[in-house]
Amino acid sequence: MSIAKVLSDLDLRKEDSLSKLFEFLRIKSISTDLHYKEDCRSAADWIGNEISNLGLSVKNYAIGDHPIVFGAPPNPNKSKPTYLFYGHYDVQPPDPIELWEFNPFEPRILNRGGKQVIHGRGSSDDKGQILTFFEACRSFLNIHEELPFNLKVLIEGEEECGSPSTSEFLKENKNLLTCDYALICDTGFEQGKPSIFTMLRGEVSLKINIKAATTDLHSGLYGGAATNPIKALSSIINNIHDKNGRIQIPNFYDDVISLNKNQKEQWASLNFDEKKFLNDVGLSSSAGEKHYSIIENLWSRPSCEITGISGGYTGKGFKTIIPAEAFANVSFRLVKDQNPEKIKACFRNFVRNMLPNDCKVSFIEGFGTRASVVSSKSKIISVAKEALIEEWGVAPILAGAGASIPIVTDLKDILGVDSLLIGFGKDEDNIHAPNEQYELESFFKGANTWARIIEKLKLN
Amino acid sequence: MSIAKVLSDLDLRKEDSLSKLFEFLRIKSISTDLHYKEDCRSAADWIGNEISNLGLSVKNYAIGDHPIVFGAPPNPNKSKPTYLFYGHYDVQPPDPIELWEFNPFEPRILNRGGKQVIHGRGSSDDKGQILTFFEACRSFLNIHEELPFNLKVLIEGEEECGSPSTSEFLKENKNLLTCDYALICDTGFEQGKPSIFTMLRGEVSLKINIKAATTDLHSGLYGGAATNPIKALSSIINNIHDKNGRIQIPNFYDDVISLNKNQKEQWASLNFDEKKFLNDVGLSSSAGEKHYSIIENLWSRPSCEITGISGGYTGKGFKTIIPAEAFANVSFRLVKDQNPEKIKACFRNFVRNMLPNDCKVSFIEGFGTRASVVSSKSKIISVAKEALIEEWGVAPILAGAGASIPIVTDLKDILGVDSLLIGFGKDEDNIHAPNEQYELESFFKGANTWARIIEKLKLN
Repeated sequence: MSIAKVLSDLDLRKEDSLSKLFEFLRIKSISTDLHYKEDCRSAADWIGNEISNLGLSVKNYAIGDHPIVFGAPPNPNKSKPTYLFYGHYDVQPPDPIELWEFNPFEPRILNRGGKQVIHGRGSSDDKGQILTFFEACRSFLNIHEELPFNLKVLIEGEEECGSPSTSEFLKENKNLLTCDYALICDTGFEQGKPSIFTMLRGEVSLKINIKAATTDLHSGLYGGAATNPIKALSSIINNIHDKNGRIQIPNFYDDVISLNKNQKEQWASLNFDEKKFLNDVGLSSSAGEKHYSIIENLWSRPSCEITGISGGYTGKGFKTIIPAEAFANVSFRLVKDQNPEKIKACFRNFVRNMLPNDCKVSFIEGFGTRASVVSSKSKIISVAKEALIEEWGVAPILAGAGASIPIVTDLKDILGVDSLLIGFGKDEDNIHAPNEQYELESFFKGANTWARIIEKLKLN
Repeated sequence: MSIAKVLSDLDLRKEDSLSKLFEFLRIKSISTDLHYKEDCRSAADWIGNEISNLGLSVKNYAIGDHPIVFGAPPNPNKSKPTYLFYGHYDVQPPDPIELWEFNPFEPRILNRGGKQVIHGRGSSDDKGQILTFFEACRSFLNIHEELPFNLKVLIEGEEECGSPSTSEFLKENKNLLTCDYALICDTGFEQGKPSIFTMLRGEVSLKINIKAATTDLHSGLYGGAATNPIKALSSIINNIHDKNGRIQIPNFYDDVISLNKNQKEQWASLNFDEKKFLNDVGLSSSAGEKHYSIIENLWSRPSCEITGISGGYTGKGFKTIIPAEAFANVSFRLVKDQNPEKIKACFRNFVRNMLPNDCKVSFIEGFGTRASVVSSKSKIISVAKEALIEEWGVAPILAGAGASIPIVTDLKDILGVDSLLIGFGKDEDNIHAPNEQYELESFFKGANTWARIIEKLKLN
């Protein structure tokens, strides 16, 4: 079987792969700090060279502060499908530096909690993860000379700054980026099991500003006569949810569909430890919609959180005023088919209808991202499932995520393609934190997993 | 009639009185700025000298930053009642200095809005007002050689800093201060009419802090599962008042008594312009308890205001967190017989009973001041009424005030005496603001009013 040859090649090259990763990890590609602009360029060049070695034509695009690296086959084979691999070469700042056991940019292998891990900034987010894919391609090419698909690659350098330029790049280069499916290796295991993410909630944020009197008033001279905007705001917030945690904004649930039976059963079978999930952050009971498990609430139900509130005097001591205005920041998490613009409009109406006499409201609106939902029936999902079972000996979870990955929505909205989201990160990898790590097993078996996927795509 | 002689003496000395006031106004006794410590001492010495000229033994007490000036008769006449006159020699800083028409410490007479006014910092708050009393005493002594009561005088220099030392002084010198009634000239006209203040609301402040999770949480990863302390706080705030503006804290109204019929009628007869009162600050409808006029709400009903609120992220842009905690500042205005400690306890219970799962609450408590209520039946009130009618040709308003004057409560609590609160300030006097003024008429007729009161006390 040819997969054996590919895996054997990966095994033979283990040391090489690791030393390549170490080279990559030594580059201080901290995108948020322009002091490291040259390092970011070095990281872009380094990964560009890797991509080039896979036989692709590589070009750097300068849209934002750090280059977007794009590779495509010089002579695509029109009879083959085209897959676009996305990842990022930039990393979070290492601060607070004093909490690291070793230099974050001098990677090394350590034994932590009985496991061999690669210690270093970027080891799991995202340098180690993207190399699993490139190493798999490398070995596959060593054995087969060509991939079973046209491979395009997009590696950006501003993901840790919120990907300010990637949407623009996608919009401006639609033809260049045309593909059938996207492959992303920037996620991890759920419940300790290999996972394929098929549902990611969307997000939309607004600021509400409620004004009443023309100026702050003396609470003695006006208290019991003047409208207080903090009271008005509190009343609005208090009325967003009913006592069962259901959102009462008219039309909010219009486009929310019920979870299908299969998915519900599959999630129930995960035996998600709700108690531990809450206890870990000092809580004990779910504040979500009743009649839904926590996993259902987080992955498949929309939510509304007040992420900030302010008004009046909040310094030391007391100041006896009735403030002239009050603010709140509101963040909605959206599910499949909910439209951010429609949700914002429903919310604005809801607020306006609740507004008491003498209050005026204005809104500042943040970006909106639709939810991403990938059909679990697509060929590549079943291919990935099989590959994960073969490599890890356990059926993967088809997981959801409460949070958003904006690039997934952009790929869907702009290029019209779904994404395969697999990755080999673990909860204990400390991404964005000191002592980031990536298990050696994640790195090697991750590459094996991608090799198996590529092999299966060849046979299908 | 001897009052004619006293008034005639006041009239003869008008120019002297005014030039004395100008001397006093030239002293930059800005208590909050220690750069003016020497000026405050000069003002204390200046007013001490005035008091001494009335035949009292004067002593300065150094408790806080600026001296308390106290004067008492060297040989009190035990058959006469004793009255304590309270006032303050300190003034607010003149800032913003550029908004003054003339130097705030170079007093002058101006014609403003068709009226002769004294322009200068402290002219109405409180130097001009206290001199109305001393000038009346001066003329009375010129004619009669002795006052019909033993006069004690307490003039402090930290009123504009919140009187931090006066309570202490009262507590430590109870015997020295023993008296039958206090006289205070630090208020003004209500509805453009001479007024005697007989009801001042008390005040008590608390800070509420509600904590939920041990740390701020990602609103994607926890939104729809974790308790949000801003929602908990909003629910509590929203439940303080019912839809009629009545406070729903159990036992809150236990000690609130109804306004008596006389007072209700007297206040109704004021024809208080509710529309103008609200329109002046950009409002149009009362937010107070239904079935009570604004004046009743402000002067005779307790109130609860949220004076500040904060929690989560409130900076620029959006941060998608569920905050770990949220704060609110709450200020209650209290009426006769409501006990600040009891009100705080009722509120703490109310909050604790509304607290949802997974929330903890803590409180920071501010000072509490009981309401001040002066019986309108006391002799000195009827004497003052008659004097005001005679001098101003119009019946005075027996007014309430929504705000507190802590010294009045201290005088009642520590010395056990009621206060006569009259004064001749007007709404347009710009106290605490640039271009402070005092009407010339207020100054001269104010002195006449006190002379009439003293005369009447002699006859009674």
